[in-house]
Amino acid sequence: MTIHALGPAPISRPIVIADVEPELDGGRFPIKREVGDTLTVPASILRDGHDHLTAVLKTRPATGAQWREAPMRLVNSGLDRWSGTVTLTENALWVYTVEAWTDHFATWHSEVSKKLAAGQDIALELIEGREIVTAAAARAEGRDRARLQALAGRFDEVADPTERTALMLSPDLGAMLARWPDRTQAVSYDRELGVMVDRVAARYAAWYEMFPRSQGTVAGRSATFAECERRLPAIRDMGFDTVYLVPIHPIGRSHRKGPNNSLSAGPGDPGSPYAIGAVEGGHTAVHPDLGTLEDFRHFVGETNRLGMEVALDIAIQCSPDHPWVREHPEWFLFRPDGTIKYAENPPKKYQDIVNVNFFGPHQDALWQELKGVFEFWIGQGVKVFRVDNPHTKPVPFWEWCIGEIKAAHPEVIFLSESFTRPPMLKMLAKVGYSQSYTYFTWRNFKQDLVDYLTELTRTETVEYLRPNFFTSTPDILPEYLQKGGRPAFMVRQVLAATLSSVYGIYNGFELCENQAVPGKEEYLNSEKYDYKVWDWDRPGNIISLITAVNRIRKENPALQELDTLRFYEADDGNVLFYGKMTPDRTNMIFVAVNLDPFDAHDSRLHFPLTEMGLGEHDSFEVEDLLSGRKHLWTGAGHSIHLDPGELPAAIFRVRVWQRIDYATPCG
Amino acid sequence: MTIHALGPAPISRPIVIADVEPELDGGRFPIKREVGDTLTVPASILRDGHDHLTAVLKTRPATGAQWREAPMRLVNSGLDRWSGTVTLTENALWVYTVEAWTDHFATWHSEVSKKLAAGQDIALELIEGREIVTAAAARAEGRDRARLQALAGRFDEVADPTERTALMLSPDLGAMLARWPDRTQAVSYDRELGVMVDRVAARYAAWYEMFPRSQGTVAGRSATFAECERRLPAIRDMGFDTVYLVPIHPIGRSHRKGPNNSLSAGPGDPGSPYAIGAVEGGHTAVHPDLGTLEDFRHFVGETNRLGMEVALDIAIQCSPDHPWVREHPEWFLFRPDGTIKYAENPPKKYQDIVNVNFFGPHQDALWQELKGVFEFWIGQGVKVFRVDNPHTKPVPFWEWCIGEIKAAHPEVIFLSESFTRPPMLKMLAKVGYSQSYTYFTWRNFKQDLVDYLTELTRTETVEYLRPNFFTSTPDILPEYLQKGGRPAFMVRQVLAATLSSVYGIYNGFELCENQAVPGKEEYLNSEKYDYKVWDWDRPGNIISLITAVNRIRKENPALQELDTLRFYEADDGNVLFYGKMTPDRTNMIFVAVNLDPFDAHDSRLHFPLTEMGLGEHDSFEVEDLLSGRKHLWTGAGHSIHLDPGELPAAIFRVRVWQRIDYATPCG
Repeated sequence: MTIHALGPAPISRPIVIADVEPELDGGRFPIKREVGDTLTVPASILRDGHDHLTAVLKTRPATGAQWREAPMRLVNSGLDRWSGTVTLTENALWVYTVEAWTDHFATWHSEVSKKLAAGQDIALELIEGREIVTAAAARAEGRDRARLQALAGRFDEVADPTERTALMLSPDLGAMLARWPDRTQAVSYDRELGVMVDRVAARYAAWYEMFPRSQGTVAGRSATFAECERRLPAIRDMGFDTVYLVPIHPIGRSHRKGPNNSLSAGPGDPGSPYAIGAVEGGHTAVHPDLGTLEDFRHFVGETNRLGMEVALDIAIQCSPDHPWVREHPEWFLFRPDGTIKYAENPPKKYQDIVNVNFFGPHQDALWQELKGVFEFWIGQGVKVFRVDNPHTKPVPFWEWCIGEIKAAHPEVIFLSESFTRPPMLKMLAKVGYSQSYTYFTWRNFKQDLVDYLTELTRTETVEYLRPNFFTSTPDILPEYLQKGGRPAFMVRQVLAATLSSVYGIYNGFELCENQAVPGKEEYLNSEKYDYKVWDWDRPGNIISLITAVNRIRKENPALQELDTLRFYEADDGNVLFYGKMTPDRTNMIFVAVNLDPFDAHDSRLHFPLTEMGLGEHDSFEVEDLLSGRKHLWTGAGHSIHLDPGELPAAIFRVRVWQRIDYATPCG
Repeated sequence: MTIHALGPAPISRPIVIADVEPELDGGRFPIKREVGDTLTVPASILRDGHDHLTAVLKTRPATGAQWREAPMRLVNSGLDRWSGTVTLTENALWVYTVEAWTDHFATWHSEVSKKLAAGQDIALELIEGREIVTAAAARAEGRDRARLQALAGRFDEVADPTERTALMLSPDLGAMLARWPDRTQAVSYDRELGVMVDRVAARYAAWYEMFPRSQGTVAGRSATFAECERRLPAIRDMGFDTVYLVPIHPIGRSHRKGPNNSLSAGPGDPGSPYAIGAVEGGHTAVHPDLGTLEDFRHFVGETNRLGMEVALDIAIQCSPDHPWVREHPEWFLFRPDGTIKYAENPPKKYQDIVNVNFFGPHQDALWQELKGVFEFWIGQGVKVFRVDNPHTKPVPFWEWCIGEIKAAHPEVIFLSESFTRPPMLKMLAKVGYSQSYTYFTWRNFKQDLVDYLTELTRTETVEYLRPNFFTSTPDILPEYLQKGGRPAFMVRQVLAATLSSVYGIYNGFELCENQAVPGKEEYLNSEKYDYKVWDWDRPGNIISLITAVNRIRKENPALQELDTLRFYEADDGNVLFYGKMTPDRTNMIFVAVNLDPFDAHDSRLHFPLTEMGLGEHDSFEVEDLLSGRKHLWTGAGHSIHLDPGELPAAIFRVRVWQRIDYATPCG
């Protein structure tokens, strides 16, 4: 706010630039885009009187000094609304703003044209115009300068008003003057806004979450990175591109948890990988059972070789055996009896974990060390991090840490695992997280899904929060999957992969694993506290569906976007119908899902013909990409039958046939 | 935006304060309130973990250093939403912000209570609590300090856990600690927001616009201030409180306009009062025909004595004869032939007016002089200004000028006469105008009125723009009045006075004057270019209606507010039904208007029983304040008949009768 009671007016130029969009919280936080996206910035630009304006959209890398400019265009003169567009081609934090100035020659040209049309004498106006040309000549360079000087000279030679008029109103002169504007009185919007331009994987990716120690074939012992590597071709074949590993560090022995989260572990129990740190090392070490750091790098290399990348889980918490506890006791809280303060959420206690204390005289050293953890793994070839419970750590820490890392490594992607209240979940996205876990897992019915996806894609949220839709996690086996069985897994797979552009499954999902601790959302005999050997080809799996859906996503650019999602009418209350299309309509995808895992439903779907660029009587080809069946349809309404026993979803690709009208002769 | 690529994180405290409301354009502009209003400020306040927070709403005068604090309360824990309220008692620009800190004792208290309930041992926790008490004792003063020290001492003496628990969990201790919070790690919202607290007349007033020279009884000559004074009792009797005079300055002779805006004036023609300045003086002089500056001051005194105040018209434009043109030619633009550049909007020319050039080396002297014009009239006792065409002057000038004047004279009210595109109209309100002319004059039909008033009262606009509804102006005689005759005048009077809390009429409106230049929205023989003598008791006038409506406004506080306006259902498409009620429902007003000036309409009105605090079967008294008729009604739906030939509107006051239920015995 400018409170003029406190000082004189700083601005002495008449142009006002306001309502610049997008702008998050008055410019406090950057919006997000991905490389190759366009950024369209509308703004209200106004001044007193009738003077003509010129405006540009300015962009530069946050660390750069040199602005680039794109022209803005008056798109709604009744609302003084201008708009400019740039394509974002560089993976970096950018800033953008708007600048405008008065175009004196265009103003003059417009006024003189009106007077001429009204038959008024314009002899004096011509001389005034000539003064504008002279001033422009002084600013111009090269050929333009010479031409402008010549024109002014010629003007002085001829006295005939008609000739002078022709000289001054020549179309050519206007174009030349537009190249040499007088920007000494230009006004810039009073904020520079940020846009984090991430690589495309921040928006479009398919994640596969794995417990490394459960990827082997021998019961009762940890698998190794080498055994994990053997799993990679199958994961690649399913169409995933991000292999996400839960923590791979040494696990504490003090208060180690036993099977099913029991308080006492037996000698052979591996403990939770989230109780990080032991004599073997902490956040920058790998668990000896998995292999060496070199083995890990080999795993990263193999993953990359297969066209995928590795995501690591970073959990800022320690087992009481973590080296930091010994080396930096000042980073932790101790109780009056000298014992370390373990994590708790009274009356619940987590004796196998201690939290760091983010504030105090040691803050700088601790924050640097934590940032160093990310940097260490970046050094091992990791570019994607899933962060555990970021909402139990201070928001300013994340803003600083992510900001610092992305400044040096803009390609790094951070996924926030924040299952907490909406303001914190959203704030973590605002301060830097590239992607966010969401409430998707608990949105299972038609209106819930429509409402939630509308919030995620049609409100300001879409500017900064990318929802990574996980169908389940090691901590969450939702009731819908527990009760709905295999059809429910198919439904959730299709929804996650087509509603959002980035999604993930947790190993075992493809096998429809749904044994729960009774009355809870937890997996029975969870591999969080155990070794597990999976039969990855177990009967009843949905690997072929997952493979098909991931292939469909790859082949259809419409499904690689989030903000184009629109819901359409389906008569049946259990059938969800939605679509995504590319702006040029070359790729149009519609999805119908029967959300009822028990019964078949028939529903009439209502296609949005106008949005599709079709008339009521136009025919269009519809191919169900899951079943392979094709239809030739006309009109908006079409009926489908979706049986959860077979396939509870259809993914339609619409193709409009070229119409060549031989009846109308062409030129 | 904090772009951390550019530097380290400035904040090392965990609390985040966001989404503070109201906040205009990221805090760039102040909102508006009036003395006596409450200001309620909700904000999202969050931090990691489960710590308890305390938050305060802070306010101070913009020029003051000392913050005042009001407690904030968690109003929606699921959304981390807090809210605080202050009453604004001082006519000045204020700033407000939010501050929050972690309440360590409340956090401790909550955790210990949970552990206690779960039967856990809390011996160590009690010692930790005692440390919090010791720290608070060091901050505390007076009796609290002594009591806290005593409590800590007692704690050390007793070893019994039950006694220690009783000491530490005593309700009294919590209250004491809340008085001595540890605010060393408090976090403030990163912006200070402004609220211009105007006097009540900025929101609630009834304006009467007069042409001073037409207030007399002798044809062909100007009336004087003395004759104007004679009109004051009648204006007061109609219930107006602001007497607004069109410009009272000497009028230029060069290119003076004749009757009906003709290009050549006769020797006896007075010219437009908007062609300001002549040999007799400029913007700080009065026209000799009206009297002297002393006469003007006498007029102001008389107006005040009758309980009204004077509003002056400030038009920043000059006749070519204005003293400024001679004394400060550098403030004006001259053409190549040496003539001064008159105002124009090609192909239209306004040869009797020249505009000042706001920018250039002379800017400071010119801006000071213009501000001095307002200050001069403030010195003569004027506290209300209507500004002519502010949108043809630079926005930054107004922000500076109004800001400076209101810093010294917060009681001054500025009305913006900006009939232009919405962004400029709104921007002038944002940069300081207290009130704004609007498009009300052209909103005559049901949906148009509902849409426009909804925009003005139910969107962000209501935070900064106060619509002063004029029924007509010297420049605008709308078609509705031209064609609808007397009933149309009655309709527009009731609408203006009850839809908005501030409204005005232009003299002659009460006489239903509606002779127009054919095909235009202009008055025939407008007094803008002529002397006029009016018969103020002309038959067919609506003085009694105006008087009644103004009295009803005075007697009913609900009508003195704007933002409480709500529309309700009326079956007939010509009948508009709306209401306003005070928050405590002690004053409930409902208005029904038949917008058709030609035909009577019957309509069923639907009263909002729930908002009125009534059940479906409750009876309520309804008094039509215009006709005096009373009804006892039950239920939501009631029919009315509105005949434009008699009275096209009803203003209902609803009174709920006290219900004493003698059947239920009381204690």
